[in-house]
Amino acid sequence: MPLWKVYHPVGAYSAQDKKEFAEKVTETYSRIPIPKFYVVMIFEEVAAESVYVGGVPHGKFVRFKLDHMARTLPGPILREWWVKAVDQLIAPFVRDRGYDWEVTIDELPADLWSLQGEIPPPFESHAEKRWVKENRVSPYGLQEKLPVGALFTPGVTGGQ
Amino acid sequence: MPLWKVYHPVGAYSAQDKKEFAEKVTETYSRIPIPKFYVVMIFEEVAAESVYVGGVPHGKFVRFKLDHMARTLPGPILREWWVKAVDQLIAPFVRDRGYDWEVTIDELPADLWSLQGEIPPPFESHAEKRWVKENRVSPYGLQEKLPVGALFTPGVTGGQ
Amino acid sequence: MPLWKVYHPVGAYSAQDKKEFAEKVTETYSRIPIPKFYVVMIFEEVAAESVYVGGVPHGKFVRFKLDHMARTLPGPILREWWVKAVDQLIAPFVRDRGYDWEVTIDELPADLWSLQGEIPPPFESHAEKRWVKENRVSPYGLQEKLPVGALFTPGVTGGQ
Repeated sequence: MPLWKVYHPVGAYSAQDKKEFAEKVTETYSRIPIPKFYVVMIFEEVAAESVYVGGVPHGKFVRFKLDHMARTLPGPILREWWVKAVDQLIAPFVRDRGYDWEVTIDELPADLWSLQGEIPPPFESHAEKRWVKENRVSPYGLQEKLPVGALFTPGVTGGQ
Repeated sequence: MPLWKVYHPVGAYSAQDKKEFAEKVTETYSRIPIPKFYVVMIFEEVAAESVYVGGVPHGKFVRFKLDHMARTLPGPILREWWVKAVDQLIAPFVRDRGYDWEVTIDELPADLWSLQGEIPPPFESHAEKRWVKENRVSPYGLQEKLPVGALFTPGVTGGQ
Repeated sequence: MPLWKVYHPVGAYSAQDKKEFAEKVTETYSRIPIPKFYVVMIFEEVAAESVYVGGVPHGKFVRFKLDHMARTLPGPILREWWVKAVDQLIAPFVRDRGYDWEVTIDELPADLWSLQGEIPPPFESHAEKRWVKENRVSPYGLQEKLPVGALFTPGVTGGQ
């Protein structure tokens, strides 16, 4: 679901740092649960002379731009909770390293999103559950679009 | 209308590839029709160590971020159709070359958009029609903001 | 509030140009008023072979992508006025230098935004006023979330 764009100072993170960061972020989202491959992180170095905060060049600033597609955060409580959860998640890579940071989260239309040509299955559907398990894109039919928790699920067998 | 940001592996596309890709995308949008110069594509190379899918560095992944301003896709049928159409359009540059890929489309406020200082004319207005023909920005007045198909078009002559 | 991403030709702006540009943009937003440190500008060079307008490589094109979080522009008059104001603001860096340019403004959810782990205070609250004055992030309580102009402000003293 999410795309994380991370604009950071040159040399702020080693390849190992980035890998650990991505693993941590993926781990957090996978507990929702959503398929792990929904989580994409793109890191981008920005030279100090190309980033300005309040009109001043800032060589220690990390800007996070998050796009959410698979889930909308419903209601003020959950939204505030998530903003705080993200802040805790990133703390070791910003606060603990002496960087300033800012985070924005955008919510994109879930129906204008595709992976390997497939429109991702509905939230908490049988197909999504299978994608979580298999951790890859695969075709699915109308039957598998039904919610896992539905009381009335004609034709869906326990094996799915 | 659209801005296509394409994050791709280093060396994935030659200058010639990018030109062909941009021509193809432009051709598709121009059939709506909208002015060709509305279509902007920006390609950006990302090193394998800076892109992570599911917590794993991915050296063969192309991420498309599309912004639509000039048109909103109305209704579920057209929205699904467009996602599929985009997938077919990009297939020669991803699927056929062995890349994994993901596409998201965002819909931005049409009234907070400007080109060379001009706010683009309304959808299917006389001015838009002229911009399509001339393929460049130029000033227009209230008269030209009327829709081409309007039954009641006071003061708009056939010549426009 | 705003993030300005500026995609520009290689070498279009010197470090001094960028600083002046960022100062000018910051100055404009600070008159709203909002805290100066809300204004972030990130400049990014794009090679001519990586940017296409209407299917043609364009070596003299500047693309602005603005994200607004702190304020929504209410109503058509103010929205058109702001688009025009931005155009005047950027003119010395595009029009006057012979570049083509395009601007889009997105409006992101204000409640999914954080700075140094703090969710920015409500518009025109006592806390925002303090942030403007101090020009840095600091904690605030429920009391300071009340609007400055509120007639009924139990417990808020004049000193704040």
